[in-house]
Amino acid sequence: MKKLRFYHSRANQQIVLLTTDYQLLTTARSLRLLKLLFMSQTYINQLKDHIGESVVLKGWLYNKRSSGKLVFLQLRDGTGIVQCVVFKPNDEALYDLADSIGQESSIIVTGTVKEDTRSSIGVELDVTALEVLQNVHDYPITPKEHGTEFLMDNRHLWIRSKKQHAVLKIRHTVIKAVRDFFDNRGFTLADTPIFTPAACEGTTTLFEVDYFGDDKAYLTQSGQLYNEATAAAFGKSYAFGPTFRAEKSKTRRHLTEFWMVEPEVAYAGYEDMMDLGEAMILSIVERVLTDRQEELKTLERDTTVLEAINSPFPRLHYDDAVKMLQEGFAKGELENNFEWGGDFGAPDETYLSTQHGKPVFVHHFPAAIKGFYFEVDKDRPECALGIDLLAPEGYGEIIGGGERATSLEYLEEQLKHHDLPQEIFEWYLDLRRYGSVPHAGFGMGIERCTAWMAGIEHVRETIPFPRMLYRLRP
Amino acid sequence: MKKLRFYHSRANQQIVLLTTDYQLLTTARSLRLLKLLFMSQTYINQLKDHIGESVVLKGWLYNKRSSGKLVFLQLRDGTGIVQCVVFKPNDEALYDLADSIGQESSIIVTGTVKEDTRSSIGVELDVTALEVLQNVHDYPITPKEHGTEFLMDNRHLWIRSKKQHAVLKIRHTVIKAVRDFFDNRGFTLADTPIFTPAACEGTTTLFEVDYFGDDKAYLTQSGQLYNEATAAAFGKSYAFGPTFRAEKSKTRRHLTEFWMVEPEVAYAGYEDMMDLGEAMILSIVERVLTDRQEELKTLERDTTVLEAINSPFPRLHYDDAVKMLQEGFAKGELENNFEWGGDFGAPDETYLSTQHGKPVFVHHFPAAIKGFYFEVDKDRPECALGIDLLAPEGYGEIIGGGERATSLEYLEEQLKHHDLPQEIFEWYLDLRRYGSVPHAGFGMGIERCTAWMAGIEHVRETIPFPRMLYRLRP
Repeated sequence: MKKLRFYHSRANQQIVLLTTDYQLLTTARSLRLLKLLFMSQTYINQLKDHIGESVVLKGWLYNKRSSGKLVFLQLRDGTGIVQCVVFKPNDEALYDLADSIGQESSIIVTGTVKEDTRSSIGVELDVTALEVLQNVHDYPITPKEHGTEFLMDNRHLWIRSKKQHAVLKIRHTVIKAVRDFFDNRGFTLADTPIFTPAACEGTTTLFEVDYFGDDKAYLTQSGQLYNEATAAAFGKSYAFGPTFRAEKSKTRRHLTEFWMVEPEVAYAGYEDMMDLGEAMILSIVERVLTDRQEELKTLERDTTVLEAINSPFPRLHYDDAVKMLQEGFAKGELENNFEWGGDFGAPDETYLSTQHGKPVFVHHFPAAIKGFYFEVDKDRPECALGIDLLAPEGYGEIIGGGERATSLEYLEEQLKHHDLPQEIFEWYLDLRRYGSVPHAGFGMGIERCTAWMAGIEHVRETIPFPRMLYRLRP
Repeated sequence: MKKLRFYHSRANQQIVLLTTDYQLLTTARSLRLLKLLFMSQTYINQLKDHIGESVVLKGWLYNKRSSGKLVFLQLRDGTGIVQCVVFKPNDEALYDLADSIGQESSIIVTGTVKEDTRSSIGVELDVTALEVLQNVHDYPITPKEHGTEFLMDNRHLWIRSKKQHAVLKIRHTVIKAVRDFFDNRGFTLADTPIFTPAACEGTTTLFEVDYFGDDKAYLTQSGQLYNEATAAAFGKSYAFGPTFRAEKSKTRRHLTEFWMVEPEVAYAGYEDMMDLGEAMILSIVERVLTDRQEELKTLERDTTVLEAINSPFPRLHYDDAVKMLQEGFAKGELENNFEWGGDFGAPDETYLSTQHGKPVFVHHFPAAIKGFYFEVDKDRPECALGIDLLAPEGYGEIIGGGERATSLEYLEEQLKHHDLPQEIFEWYLDLRRYGSVPHAGFGMGIERCTAWMAGIEHVRETIPFPRMLYRLRP
């Protein structure tokens, strides 16, 4: 690295940091601040504010290209990628060093920021010094094609790649948008437990944990039942955490460990949840389009379909959805004829959502296919006041929820009917014994929503370290 | 409830909603908007903006007091508690109804908002109508004293109580402050997996999960090892999720399931982590003091000790901490004489932090008592570049972290030395094979931090549904 000169400017009460050739690097009011400035090294996404200045970048070699007298280093530091140019006639030793390093070598590059209109980030770097921390020559993920299993085995390295990096940045933005949405609307975050003594919906897909030898715990599948308790305490609450399903299905939509956001509102009905879900989705779409343009471009996402999403979302009664599916079958657009009473399969969901080009709510599902806790339509008790939101482009159900039953007697019957042990649910029934109120909520899976925003095929790429039927590593 | 009158005002293109005695309730540009306005019922924390207006409140009876001609209903709706006054001579039937309801009855109250300087929220309500959804008469948690076990068994109801409510609101603010802190500083949220094939530090305190019969998974104790991979991808990353320890200790500081935030920074050292941790703590303290004044008052928290916390936090070398403890023993202020090489016990932590009245960093711990992954001081290899932050007032260690080893060879040795199977850590060693860089991070437990902010004794009250050695319910 270049040698530096420090000056203390008495006039301005400032410390001035210059290069040996008197280029101003930075100023600060104290040594402590100066140190902090150096801790916050210059990051690539800040380079546009430093045109003409000398900066220090710390990162890894993403890619390299040489052509006679020039070496072009693609440096990544986690915030972006910038082209760093070494010109042989300027410094032959520097050129040889730059030319010798392999992909993912860890390097510290000093250089001058130059405007460059051809670059996607608007700048490039004229290298003046290069420090190589580790010269790597056998990085396993090369720019050539690799099989999925190989990439998943190397997930800890794969996340450094442009597209994986972009998907995970979008994931963060989705989560931030969701949290801000609820925080700004008076919801209280109340994390529900991961260890539960009972399942929300049956026990076949539960992971079992040995709890100190003499007890069994199950990993939560949904925080809903607990949210109903927190909604009675806070009026509006939400949980946001990992949930678990021991599903043996190996589809592109399933993970054994996935993150869910679950709002719950006291004194609200299923229609309120369609309003709330719609507003939440709109705010996610807007935030992703605003904050993640660069990443969407990297993923070659067709953003026009996201930009076209607007209020109101169609709201289909299950009866009408069934009619629509039967018409689809009659027209030869669906393979199977759907019958009233069934649950939608993936082709049904795709068919329903592609009729509208935006997310579609379906409500009033048959009570028989829904959980024990659903409120039913008083005039048609065979219909539960459940809602699903189907995402466009075949991304399937991303929201599921509805209105919860308020009557103690009804719930006691339902527990018997579903063969669930009442003893374990006594606390839940207490919510109907002590100040029962109409209430409703829903859950949204973060990975499905992220896959939809990013326009990618498989949810396994929407989480840093996916867990699936045959995937527990790295 | 009162009957209402709708008018459509052609002049203003508005729908006008009046009571039967022509009091203006609200106006809206469409029926849809009107519905939305009604979905967003008036909440108690908004009442100050509605003085003189008639509003509808939906909630539960927190407490009741009658005195001859007056009934005072304390109504809670999750955002606050307001006194609702019923005057017998105005409406005898209303008075009788109000007088008949028990604690935690679910009620909808219509009334006029009146300024009241004696009220902590500045207003009270003159009730004009009351709808009782459920009249409750046997609510188990009465204003009298209850035992802890009883309250914990009724945690789903206990969270409705003023103090528990206040603690959980503070928890939410702590979490929000932490997330905003990292989001605003260019950190990428990267959730680490809950199911892991190996432990970060030994296996005695791990929860084991049966993973589809032919494999075992362990519940994560820390996302750190994975954070090291995401920091290499994003430069600055953080994980925020539940972690698990099967500790058989039943102390006031331990839960089997607790939430941690864990930042990790590439190209950073242990001193940077002290800077980062200090800045994070200061931003949490500031946010809690700003946003949760009311709750701190409810908890009778001495806020002067929080207000006194400022930069810089003292930074003690472990050697000096040992000296200080030995002096404490000599003065008779500590029961046991601390010796170099040991880990601090609770009395030691309390002693060290009470010497300063603000949080204290200790660094350079003996390598022998730290994890296998710590970087050591080149000049004193018996010292690890680890940092702990001890909270004041006896709240103990709330941050633990440090600089991670960068050398492949050193880590391979350490795995052998700690008797850990290298095969499971191959992916982790890859981070030293492919672009190894200096990096550091730390973890902070949300529950301990919340207990400290709220000034409460036991962490079990800082999480909605605590899990402990003998506590898996509700």
